Amino acid sequence: MAKDLLVFGTLGFDSVTTPFGKIERGFGGSGAFAAVAASHFIRPAMVGAIGKDFDPAFIDVLEKRRIDTSGLFQKNGKSFSWKAHYGFDVNTAFTDEVDPSILFDYDPVVPERFHSSRFVLLGNSSPDHQLRVLDQIRPKPLLSVCDTMNYYIEKEPAKVKHMVRTAHIGLMNDAEARQLFNTPNLRKAANEILDLDSRFAIIKKGEHGAVLFTRKGFFSVPGYPLENVRDPTGCGDSFAGAFLGYLAQQENQHEKNVRKAMVWGSVVASFNAEDFSFKRQLELTKTDLRDRYNEFKSFVRF
Amino acid sequence: MAKDLLVFGTLGFDSVTTPFGKIERGFGGSGAFAAVAASHFIRPAMVGAIGKDFDPAFIDVLEKRRIDTSGLFQKNGKSFSWKAHYGFDVNTAFTDEVDPSILFDYDPVVPERFHSSRFVLLGNSSPDHQLRVLDQIRPKPLLSVCDTMNYYIEKEPAKVKHMVRTAHIGLMNDAEARQLFNTPNLRKAANEILDLDSRFAIIKKGEHGAVLFTRKGFFSVPGYPLENVRDPTGCGDSFAGAFLGYLAQQENQHEKNVRKAMVWGSVVASFNAEDFSFKRQLELTKTDLRDRYNEFKSFVRF
Repeated sequence: MAKDLLVFGTLGFDSVTTPFGKIERGFGGSGAFAAVAASHFIRPAMVGAIGKDFDPAFIDVLEKRRIDTSGLFQKNGKSFSWKAHYGFDVNTAFTDEVDPSILFDYDPVVPERFHSSRFVLLGNSSPDHQLRVLDQIRPKPLLSVCDTMNYYIEKEPAKVKHMVRTAHIGLMNDAEARQLFNTPNLRKAANEILDLDSRFAIIKKGEHGAVLFTRKGFFSVPGYPLENVRDPTGCGDSFAGAFLGYLAQQENQHEKNVRKAMVWGSVVASFNAEDFSFKRQLELTKTDLRDRYNEFKSFVRF
Repeated sequence: MAKDLLVFGTLGFDSVTTPFGKIERGFGGSGAFAAVAASHFIRPAMVGAIGKDFDPAFIDVLEKRRIDTSGLFQKNGKSFSWKAHYGFDVNTAFTDEVDPSILFDYDPVVPERFHSSRFVLLGNSSPDHQLRVLDQIRPKPLLSVCDTMNYYIEKEPAKVKHMVRTAHIGLMNDAEARQLFNTPNLRKAANEILDLDSRFAIIKKGEHGAVLFTRKGFFSVPGYPLENVRDPTGCGDSFAGAFLGYLAQQENQHEKNVRKAMVWGSVVASFNAEDFSFKRQLELTKTDLRDRYNEFKSFVRF
């Protein structure tokens, strides 16, 4: 079971200040958020690079969630770190410092025991690394999802598009989709993702929810109106992780289940924003998750 | 029937440039958009001020929609006019010129035949005028809805709050709600509206839809992902007009119908954005409206 979902992405230290508090060198990273979110539904395995300074307590966090960390590779150098602050409007993060040096000269080797993973989540990272990971999965996975971010869209848009074309589902946030396809119109951007042979295009809109686009139509899940948002860091990654974690557990990955997965992604992401790092996610029970899922059901009913 | 819904707001000339075209001195104004949108469901009556330069063709537009224009008051001076442009991201209007002089020394007298209106929509205008209109309705209406805008929130926030307290439903867009209650958090802002004795708080979020808040919960209607947005001017007013136009036709105004009214508001607003001024709204058939309503139903189902 543990090898059914493979999560690739960054792991490291997040130092974040919001109007509601701060955290110094807390546990974060796209792979970390995605794997923890997925672990509410499945036992994922991770691939990613960590530095010599990586906090062993972070590994404990993952292992307590029964995440397989044996694919993490400890390299010389410092772990990925990110320092940022959010203003009054917590929708936008302002990056103060980032140290991505751990990703230089990194070849993301997937241990052989994970080569047959049926589900693969390629979290925010360089498209070269994402492609390299996906290329090692044989036979091709049943479903692969790739995220991306502005840094790579600016630097190598053609490679990002190639990555989207190679994965089954292209997923990104609204600003990224607008930037990658040079249009303010999300539906046009989504059609461009679909034109890259994506089975589904998923556009995350932060506090405004997320939209799933298919050739035939769309499905929209509104944002959960949280009364207390303490730190939105990792919500997009958590959405992706919970989305694929849920979906990997289903009998099929048809649109009906994909829609439900969108809601589960939103459920976990909404909890994630309620506190720093994994504080809120780690205390969640099945009942908390189910209750909020039912709330989503009731608040779109008409 | 015609007196069941009274719409108050501005009427005048809109000159708008978007990346997709422009219009010079087209028909617009908060009252005009609200009344036309309401007319898909009911025959509203209007109260508002127009200048000597008002285009008689605009009156024809309203009368063809069977809107009662006998409460419009023609004053000396120029009609309300607004010149604005939208950039690449059509969510934000940049005002270039506005002439609100018609509203100075204007006393919005409601003709006696409309004093018993059961439903009253107080479109964007000064809170003094809104209160004056509402005060003339005897007995108190069954349901009154008030909108507002940044100009009055900055100038006289206490009066805007008094207006919200006096009407049954406070409705505003997200930026306005954040500004009026000095919080980035929409749920907190909505709670403040409810604390002003609003039966429901409605927050419009432009392309991201709208949210209805009650003491017990909320209802969220996502934005319709339009492929072609030509001009979003008047969408918020159209939402409000269709919302109350639909609701005024229902047996009761309980939450179940209020939720449906939110969707009808979104349906009409989404069409409104497809072309300049009333171009799209005036060609809509019952079938167009019903089809899009059903689309909304299908795109939130999970």
